[in-house]
Amino acid sequence: MEMFNNYSFIGCDADYEKSDIVIFGAPYDGTSSFRPGSRFAASRIRIDSYGLETYSPYLDRDLLIKHVHDAGDLDFVFGNRDLVLSNIREFATKLIEENKKPLMIGGEHLVTLPVVEALNEKFEDLVILHFDAHTDLREDYMGEKLSHATVIKRVWEILGDNRIYQFGIRSGLKEEFKWAESGHTTLNKFGYEMLDQVINLIKHKPVYITIDLDILDPSIFPGTGTPEPGGISFTDMMTIIKKLSTLNIIGADVVELAPDYDSTGVSTAVASKIIREMLLIL
Amino acid sequence: MEMFNNYSFIGCDADYEKSDIVIFGAPYDGTSSFRPGSRFAASRIRIDSYGLETYSPYLDRDLLIKHVHDAGDLDFVFGNRDLVLSNIREFATKLIEENKKPLMIGGEHLVTLPVVEALNEKFEDLVILHFDAHTDLREDYMGEKLSHATVIKRVWEILGDNRIYQFGIRSGLKEEFKWAESGHTTLNKFGYEMLDQVINLIKHKPVYITIDLDILDPSIFPGTGTPEPGGISFTDMMTIIKKLSTLNIIGADVVELAPDYDSTGVSTAVASKIIREMLLIL
Amino acid sequence: MEMFNNYSFIGCDADYEKSDIVIFGAPYDGTSSFRPGSRFAASRIRIDSYGLETYSPYLDRDLLIKHVHDAGDLDFVFGNRDLVLSNIREFATKLIEENKKPLMIGGEHLVTLPVVEALNEKFEDLVILHFDAHTDLREDYMGEKLSHATVIKRVWEILGDNRIYQFGIRSGLKEEFKWAESGHTTLNKFGYEMLDQVINLIKHKPVYITIDLDILDPSIFPGTGTPEPGGISFTDMMTIIKKLSTLNIIGADVVELAPDYDSTGVSTAVASKIIREMLLIL
Amino acid sequence: MEMFNNYSFIGCDADYEKSDIVIFGAPYDGTSSFRPGSRFAASRIRIDSYGLETYSPYLDRDLLIKHVHDAGDLDFVFGNRDLVLSNIREFATKLIEENKKPLMIGGEHLVTLPVVEALNEKFEDLVILHFDAHTDLREDYMGEKLSHATVIKRVWEILGDNRIYQFGIRSGLKEEFKWAESGHTTLNKFGYEMLDQVINLIKHKPVYITIDLDILDPSIFPGTGTPEPGGISFTDMMTIIKKLSTLNIIGADVVELAPDYDSTGVSTAVASKIIREMLLIL
Amino acid sequence: MEMFNNYSFIGCDADYEKSDIVIFGAPYDGTSSFRPGSRFAASRIRIDSYGLETYSPYLDRDLLIKHVHDAGDLDFVFGNRDLVLSNIREFATKLIEENKKPLMIGGEHLVTLPVVEALNEKFEDLVILHFDAHTDLREDYMGEKLSHATVIKRVWEILGDNRIYQFGIRSGLKEEFKWAESGHTTLNKFGYEMLDQVINLIKHKPVYITIDLDILDPSIFPGTGTPEPGGISFTDMMTIIKKLSTLNIIGADVVELAPDYDSTGVSTAVASKIIREMLLIL
Amino acid sequence: MEMFNNYSFIGCDADYEKSDIVIFGAPYDGTSSFRPGSRFAASRIRIDSYGLETYSPYLDRDLLIKHVHDAGDLDFVFGNRDLVLSNIREFATKLIEENKKPLMIGGEHLVTLPVVEALNEKFEDLVILHFDAHTDLREDYMGEKLSHATVIKRVWEILGDNRIYQFGIRSGLKEEFKWAESGHTTLNKFGYEMLDQVINLIKHKPVYITIDLDILDPSIFPGTGTPEPGGISFTDMMTIIKKLSTLNIIGADVVELAPDYDSTGVSTAVASKIIREMLLIL
Repeated sequence: MEMFNNYSFIGCDADYEKSDIVIFGAPYDGTSSFRPGSRFAASRIRIDSYGLETYSPYLDRDLLIKHVHDAGDLDFVFGNRDLVLSNIREFATKLIEENKKPLMIGGEHLVTLPVVEALNEKFEDLVILHFDAHTDLREDYMGEKLSHATVIKRVWEILGDNRIYQFGIRSGLKEEFKWAESGHTTLNKFGYEMLDQVINLIKHKPVYITIDLDILDPSIFPGTGTPEPGGISFTDMMTIIKKLSTLNIIGADVVELAPDYDSTGVSTAVASKIIREMLLIL
Repeated sequence: MEMFNNYSFIGCDADYEKSDIVIFGAPYDGTSSFRPGSRFAASRIRIDSYGLETYSPYLDRDLLIKHVHDAGDLDFVFGNRDLVLSNIREFATKLIEENKKPLMIGGEHLVTLPVVEALNEKFEDLVILHFDAHTDLREDYMGEKLSHATVIKRVWEILGDNRIYQFGIRSGLKEEFKWAESGHTTLNKFGYEMLDQVINLIKHKPVYITIDLDILDPSIFPGTGTPEPGGISFTDMMTIIKKLSTLNIIGADVVELAPDYDSTGVSTAVASKIIREMLLIL
Repeated sequence: MEMFNNYSFIGCDADYEKSDIVIFGAPYDGTSSFRPGSRFAASRIRIDSYGLETYSPYLDRDLLIKHVHDAGDLDFVFGNRDLVLSNIREFATKLIEENKKPLMIGGEHLVTLPVVEALNEKFEDLVILHFDAHTDLREDYMGEKLSHATVIKRVWEILGDNRIYQFGIRSGLKEEFKWAESGHTTLNKFGYEMLDQVINLIKHKPVYITIDLDILDPSIFPGTGTPEPGGISFTDMMTIIKKLSTLNIIGADVVELAPDYDSTGVSTAVASKIIREMLLIL
Repeated sequence: MEMFNNYSFIGCDADYEKSDIVIFGAPYDGTSSFRPGSRFAASRIRIDSYGLETYSPYLDRDLLIKHVHDAGDLDFVFGNRDLVLSNIREFATKLIEENKKPLMIGGEHLVTLPVVEALNEKFEDLVILHFDAHTDLREDYMGEKLSHATVIKRVWEILGDNRIYQFGIRSGLKEEFKWAESGHTTLNKFGYEMLDQVINLIKHKPVYITIDLDILDPSIFPGTGTPEPGGISFTDMMTIIKKLSTLNIIGADVVELAPDYDSTGVSTAVASKIIREMLLIL
Repeated sequence: MEMFNNYSFIGCDADYEKSDIVIFGAPYDGTSSFRPGSRFAASRIRIDSYGLETYSPYLDRDLLIKHVHDAGDLDFVFGNRDLVLSNIREFATKLIEENKKPLMIGGEHLVTLPVVEALNEKFEDLVILHFDAHTDLREDYMGEKLSHATVIKRVWEILGDNRIYQFGIRSGLKEEFKWAESGHTTLNKFGYEMLDQVINLIKHKPVYITIDLDILDPSIFPGTGTPEPGGISFTDMMTIIKKLSTLNIIGADVVELAPDYDSTGVSTAVASKIIREMLLIL
Repeated sequence: MEMFNNYSFIGCDADYEKSDIVIFGAPYDGTSSFRPGSRFAASRIRIDSYGLETYSPYLDRDLLIKHVHDAGDLDFVFGNRDLVLSNIREFATKLIEENKKPLMIGGEHLVTLPVVEALNEKFEDLVILHFDAHTDLREDYMGEKLSHATVIKRVWEILGDNRIYQFGIRSGLKEEFKWAESGHTTLNKFGYEMLDQVINLIKHKPVYITIDLDILDPSIFPGTGTPEPGGISFTDMMTIIKKLSTLNIIGADVVELAPDYDSTGVSTAVASKIIREMLLIL
């Protein structure tokens, strides 16, 4: 007679002290302009992760031999964006100081900003790989500087030129594309043609990876705030992760699953498997 | 050959200048702690209102003889709660100054606060009738003073004791119930037993009516953030509105429809009909 | 080892020749102005009827002792309303000539018209009991005489005054209510207060019963084209059917289930149980 | 900065040793003949319980002052019914021996049987209150003795006549109703007219309460395997529980929520609130 | 403080007089034989178009520099197919006479016929590019000549051989394929291998483009009446539109979105983006 | 006037005696560990098959010239796994003895086992082609030998090494992959690279084909118990079936559609089309 009362992400039951990686949720979706609901991603992913195996045939690795702690979710108050951001920054800083690699489950994309801020304190030469359907490079969104639509522009303000590599981008204002192309970021339109080249270029640097899941085609990932047809396939994503496994990754996030918009559960299954793979290469 | 390109609420096509009543949307749901989505209420209600007749057999009145202008939605930026609230206050103030009665479609319940603030500038002795499943009387919600869960407490800070009448309440902290019962508000647990008495008491005063639609039983209104079984029926609501029609109503709001949580469309139909009836008694 | 390959309505497996009652589907929804889909009602009802028992504790009768034949669905071509109507009339006429009582599953409400035409050929003094949320008494609908919104007006043109009794009505144009109240039909607003009286009045006459399922409150019956809150309960419907069981019923129909709009399956379960009860009193 | 990583039922965080009541899940739905899915009830209820308050205005009691431990779910292997039943019996026996009252969340109704078997070992004069839409009194179901449709017949074989009180029953074979009425159980058709009388009769006996949630009308509880219209309301259920609070209740279960069939989440909210109330009267 | 009360397709707010292109809806689905609901396409597309950017990275063009007027929807009466068709023909004729290019949003595929009739009055040598999963070449459908399943056959009767080019076709009667292959139309089975060749052939002729969205694979476009697996991808569609941009396009339509069948909203997003691209090449 | 009362799979209306192929349903899902519901597959497929044409443009063959009998569904009692398996074995044995080829619609994958047992009695050298996302090679699942997760291991115990060819496999325990690779089965990871080679190898042997539909990518087939992203496309499946058409196929099954998890209906449409193609090559 066995009881089941564990709602950690599958295979992530190391104690905090013994862990190398800490997975946690940042269930904030307060600046979403179209369909909110990414706040529900982390708790849904944990439950559905029990439909996964811990073994990845893509990487031929097993999660059971990693030391990952699942810290649960940050407990936010909605409506106060700035307090949310400072909570995330504080928690990420603590993890970094204690030599844990963060794997954050969003929430919307704005949650990436405080983690980058925290990492930037410690790591010189920090490089960002940004996987997304959207440019996220607006100067402001209806007057607001802090928004899911501006987050990578804010990251650029911290890191400067030649530190941000964008993949899968297929939606944005004309100005955003032009600004990126003028040399501020390296932007791959639609796909990831330059990935091998980029990996070669940054292989000695600390790398943070932020995956906005809407980079995937909505055929396989409809459960997101702003679905954009024309995305990459799940198999592409597996190929990408395999390539990334050679890098010095110091943290990652996986954002923008809004599970209630996909009643089939497939989007959550996809997010869970991508998180498993990311944990395996961290 | 006729074209249809009118997305105003049915029967609300008076010009602004000639109107006595202005209906508008306040699509904000930024402090929702459970299920967001009331931002979509106003636009969905407008479209589905074309399934309604303009004639009410409950009141034996027809919307076609009223002068109502549909001003559309306030255009908010998500993530900045305070700016949203000041936008609403500004618009409500303008309407009041120009002698239009506001009928606001939420959004979450916090949007009521700025309208009350605006009305309180003009109307002494303002009285609030509050229909809701929840007390909304918390002093703060996880440290935040401005929240859907605190809104009536904030209204009380403006108006003081004996000015707020609550109906249908069936969920809250123990302290909230005790606080209300200690004389600050008049709270009807579960139903509306005291309604006749209250109407008699306030019949010479200016009255603002705020209807959180989750006062309804979720059998007939599942499409809301926090469904609370044990609510009143739609027929109860019609009875209530008929009774209210004798009052001096200076404005009203109808909040907390989250249409995506009810794929049958019934919640939107219910909200639309309640709005029609409210317009008929304004 | 048993095989299951019977998709008749549960308990309706008499041969045509030995049957007293014939149940059939009329899957037409071509004039629906809001949400179509009642074409799927009959096939869904047959399948879900296997979740029912054949025994009714309401009537203390069992379907197993009745002789009912399920003839399947009329096979319509969509887009040709007049041909559809003549197909129904022809089939109903055949049943009546061969002394079978028809129990038709709609489809939308317009399908009632040809059955009434067929019955009127044989039965003098035919009386109609009309259960519905809507008046269905428009002279025309956007210029069209034959529509779900005009069907009872067309029936009145056949039968004349004092032959139509309407129950549950809560939506319509002001003119429709006034026309009915001027003596053309007996209209019960909202409920069925006059039912006992009407039953007494018509007890020696041949009665046709047409049930538009949207008479029910959408809390229990959301799966319909135009849900109208404020309807009667399922228990009310059972009470009504029990009262009707003393009448000389010569046929009936049950219309306007649109099953795809209720993913819970409850609307189909409700329709199935009402059909079981109707078969038991035919 | 607070973390949230607690997925116990809200307010049930006592240690096992200090607890008087133990809540646990029995996620088995292997004999469901129509729509399976009650296996998902317990985990969904735990998560959605955070939409509840711990305070009940119905009972004016607060869960925070009770000592309840949430043991998680029994970890079943599907396909082996007999092993599942013996797992439940073993766990219930342990709880009873250690003087903990069990509150079990089903799963389908068959899970009640092993708990009754365990309780019957310790408590003479055990009495069962059975709330349900269905008789559950079949001798066998397609040849099988152990089924959701036979569970109360099996319970009767253990306890004998005059020990089982049934409420809300509105569906079953004619024989089941007749067998019950011949004196084996006390069966309330449709409602709970005899409840006061029964409570008076059994007030000195140990009582087990089994609530098949399909006793509720599907308007408020569509998320179940076999929805049966004509059920009791949520308010009725609250009235019943208040009456039951005077009894010597030694355990209870709440079964047959199939949450995936109600995408609005209302059924889960209803189940959660009923569990809160049951915990408050245990 | 800004108000939003514009429900035109995004970027289509030119006055009628100043416009070169007029977009309008033809919400008719009366001959759909399987799942109706394309009547809701145009209004849903307008609302969800606000999730789009006006800039296309595929074409590197921006909708803001085009002059497009959104005329709203033709206001149809359901049940009278022939009147619907003549309404469309009349409106299309007016547009053509006033030198506006029509971009029609269906509705089912039959709505294409009257537009072709209107264009054929003015343009000699009119050529049709037909993108679809289905042949639509039946002589009649259950006896009816005017049906979604016969529409291209009717178009052929107007234009004759060598004027119709079909792409993506993967479902139909054996006879339809054989008839097409015998030289009446140019039919590409499954894909669009001959597209370059066709474009070269017709580059000096006036071209009308009719896109039945079910040409897309249902993985990316499930929201349609008759989903047919094995379709082209969204990226294929973007490639096709880019190729078409060199042609002399005099009008286009986009038909058969049935949005209620895709609760994720992805189908509507796909349709909206295809319409944006079509407007950019008109 | 035609009636429709045929719920056989489209084009499968041969009498049993005259048929070469018998299609039947095995609606059992009792060992599903994650999401049940494949019990509903066969009845849903039959109804939706009327959205298909009988002609396949992939194979250029028409079902109308085949002699297929649809025997309906085996009538199971849930909860008794072993009885279910023996029912299937008995029915399959009867078909084989009477020289009918079985085409079974699952249910979950465990239903394959008794059919293989029955075929193995008659056919020496029986070879299995196994299309699936999952290895299904566990020795036991939580102690149980008979489970959807162990079914191919059980088949191997009957047939031995070099008789099982697995395609599309992308999920399983590390041990399962290693066991397969050690020579017990031929396992194609992710795709079907070795298919041509395998076909050549087994072309003179009797072949049974078991298709777990979750081999397909969940973008096109979300309606299954455990969706696994990274699967093959529908077009791949058509290519595979065309290749298989040269083999000596003595039976087949198509399992693991759980239609309620895909409200768009696409998964059912996909399953139906695959069954049509399989019937055409049997």
